[in-house]
Amino acid sequence: MKAPYRLYLNENQIPDAWYNLRADMPVLPDPLRNPATGAPAGLEDLTPVFCEELAKQELDGKTRYFDIPGPVMDIYRQYRPSPLVRAYNLEKALGTPAKIYYKFEGNNTCGSHKINSAVPQVYYAKQQGLTALTTETGAGQWGSALAEACAYFNMPLTVYMVKVSYEQKPYRKAVMQTFGADVIPSPSDTTNVGRAILEKDPNTTGSLGCAISEAVEKAVTTPGTRYVLGSVLNQVLLHQSIIGQEARIAMDMLDEYPDVVIGCAGGGSNLGGLIAPYMSDKLNGKANPRIVAVEPASCPSFTRGKYAYDFCDTGRITPLARMYTLGCGFIPSANHAGGLRYHGMSPILSKLYHDGLMEAVAVEQTRVFEAATMFARLETILPAPESAHAIRAAIDEALRCKESGQKETILFGLTGTGFFDMSAYTRFNEGTMTDTIPTDEQLQASFDTLPKVPGLDD
Amino acid sequence: MKAPYRLYLNENQIPDAWYNLRADMPVLPDPLRNPATGAPAGLEDLTPVFCEELAKQELDGKTRYFDIPGPVMDIYRQYRPSPLVRAYNLEKALGTPAKIYYKFEGNNTCGSHKINSAVPQVYYAKQQGLTALTTETGAGQWGSALAEACAYFNMPLTVYMVKVSYEQKPYRKAVMQTFGADVIPSPSDTTNVGRAILEKDPNTTGSLGCAISEAVEKAVTTPGTRYVLGSVLNQVLLHQSIIGQEARIAMDMLDEYPDVVIGCAGGGSNLGGLIAPYMSDKLNGKANPRIVAVEPASCPSFTRGKYAYDFCDTGRITPLARMYTLGCGFIPSANHAGGLRYHGMSPILSKLYHDGLMEAVAVEQTRVFEAATMFARLETILPAPESAHAIRAAIDEALRCKESGQKETILFGLTGTGFFDMSAYTRFNEGTMTDTIPTDEQLQASFDTLPKVPGLDD
Repeated sequence: MKAPYRLYLNENQIPDAWYNLRADMPVLPDPLRNPATGAPAGLEDLTPVFCEELAKQELDGKTRYFDIPGPVMDIYRQYRPSPLVRAYNLEKALGTPAKIYYKFEGNNTCGSHKINSAVPQVYYAKQQGLTALTTETGAGQWGSALAEACAYFNMPLTVYMVKVSYEQKPYRKAVMQTFGADVIPSPSDTTNVGRAILEKDPNTTGSLGCAISEAVEKAVTTPGTRYVLGSVLNQVLLHQSIIGQEARIAMDMLDEYPDVVIGCAGGGSNLGGLIAPYMSDKLNGKANPRIVAVEPASCPSFTRGKYAYDFCDTGRITPLARMYTLGCGFIPSANHAGGLRYHGMSPILSKLYHDGLMEAVAVEQTRVFEAATMFARLETILPAPESAHAIRAAIDEALRCKESGQKETILFGLTGTGFFDMSAYTRFNEGTMTDTIPTDEQLQASFDTLPKVPGLDD
Repeated sequence: MKAPYRLYLNENQIPDAWYNLRADMPVLPDPLRNPATGAPAGLEDLTPVFCEELAKQELDGKTRYFDIPGPVMDIYRQYRPSPLVRAYNLEKALGTPAKIYYKFEGNNTCGSHKINSAVPQVYYAKQQGLTALTTETGAGQWGSALAEACAYFNMPLTVYMVKVSYEQKPYRKAVMQTFGADVIPSPSDTTNVGRAILEKDPNTTGSLGCAISEAVEKAVTTPGTRYVLGSVLNQVLLHQSIIGQEARIAMDMLDEYPDVVIGCAGGGSNLGGLIAPYMSDKLNGKANPRIVAVEPASCPSFTRGKYAYDFCDTGRITPLARMYTLGCGFIPSANHAGGLRYHGMSPILSKLYHDGLMEAVAVEQTRVFEAATMFARLETILPAPESAHAIRAAIDEALRCKESGQKETILFGLTGTGFFDMSAYTRFNEGTMTDTIPTDEQLQASFDTLPKVPGLDD
């Protein structure tokens, strides 16, 4: 079958179970740990923060497939399957012998893949009889997705939005408010953590780690309330496996197998979901595709971070996770535009990277926006800056193929649209965008704040 | 076949010709006329303003089908076919026995159906060897679409953007600029028409009619430059027939035939395209669906306008068209949010309406945003305010069916997404949105400016 520009599966080809990559890993990621005792976290540690079913998914490294509940499937069917697109025009413009495919997740109101995990998280919370949820959002994709899912299930939601995004993205805020969410700029004076950070640095632009601290504090101090997170966690990668599974089915229909699979990586939700079936092949010795994570040079957790136990939040109140991290106190330069601002990385992906099963590259934002603009003009989709990191790497791979004459097949994840990131595009268009790369000294100062784990580091 | 949530045709089901509704009309719309002589406009009147091939399409009431050129098909295949969606959740929430379908045209960067006509218009201009284009835009959908098409074909573009939108929609402006367009708020001091309007009323918020005048003046006074328009014209309705033809194929696959077809109407481009095959059935006596145009109560050209010859622009420099019009001097209240601000209406649709072949309703914007918010929460698409006019009417029809118990099938056009209209949503959310309906006196004052046609009105 010759690839069409866009291949849509039909609805009954949507997988009806999420695939749990951990079940195929020879060695599981290190467990979450209680920061006070150093003991591996169990259900009782997680359920005060997370809804019960999600806490179970978080800890379950054995079950290979989780059935997708009917009401979740019903919403998936409203905006899925997402198309697998052959980038014919991009290939032609690059003059590459490579074939470029992308899985596009932006066909919904929140404009990104985040809705794939938002829907089940709200569903399980509703099932448990919870009465409110809290979360944080950076660029706003996750907050919009969760607000949409909460509106659908009629669940009240408070969103702590990183202050710099709150100010730069009024339309994102308006989307969340349209869906009925309460949106608060973080750090705020509504939590102890927020007040402490504000006292230390009243002019902080905020960080994802800090917003997480506030959302968690609010959840554990409010009855009937739990916290939900849009990336990093195992449960989120589980839900996002829908992306990779659909991509795999569509690629199989075209008799294609990728030589390289590329995804942008902030906390790892999209990347972990996209690569799941291909990493499975790799772990099971069935195939050996390259897997490439792309991160911003201004927030380079894979390429310059440490593989260490760290807090998931700036306020140091969450369990400890072993992951590639820049230190939970790391705050990327305010000059950095759009998403992928998290100090750490999914423990699953961190483990795979540490074991040499995947690669990572860091790219500078001016090169990212060059790629984004080229892509927009050729492919009729104006990409989110986050997604454009993957575009940049895919273009670089395609140019390498042009150089070498190799006819490789490239698959990348196009996680969303850039409709809400136009101020960043404006800076790029006006030539005022610059690159900011943290110095070794800055990173070292941040590493110095890494926690000791009782019993391990004593 | 049970309707899936979203039905995507495959690429080779995209029609390869546009359908010209005029070829089936028993009496053609009245011709465009030269305002100085009153004579019907011929090619020689149109080609100084429009590219030649488009001028031919404008005047051709006989040719039933126009082949879609290959390079245009190539771009259509990048974002088409657009899905036909069954609004299961909306139906359920309304408790209606009616089936509600919508054709969704927002899956592309400009976020609306406008790209369907932008692509061929730029293609034909390029074929003719033109070196620049001008246009106007109101809410910004057309400008974004045209900028995208111009980027694709490497054609310089100047966009006159209605000042109120220019100020309220900085992101729209940024999208156009990302695609390389020069965006100027209208009225401006770059044209005689603009300067004259500014002198009369320095605080005017602008109007589509005024922006058209500026864009036309700029085109006819700049060598190698022509003007392109995103609605109203026969050529635009021709290109937009792709919407209705696809909808028809998908509905046929589901064994469905609409009892009522609903579209929002500003200049008529979406409505004319969506209804084309169904109006054809009606004209040929094969079926008798109701066809409903929905317009804003604040700019009610069908429901309160006059069927008369009028200028297409505020500056009174275009040919005269016979259409439903509020008078070319009519400027809707600045309180009116988002699109559908044009004083006139497609001559084709005006003729069909005048001959009793279709209906029209006017709706107030607070009711429109109520419908939009309900729809967003249920259907995972946050609609453009323009599109939400059609949603409002579809909901009202579905509620009528609930009342009467009739199991009708409703089809409406969801022309685009509301990502760029969040300031209007914010006003609605905050309860500060109000309705502004022109008084009879205001309309009469505007009608008084209708031109006399030499030889007809003498």
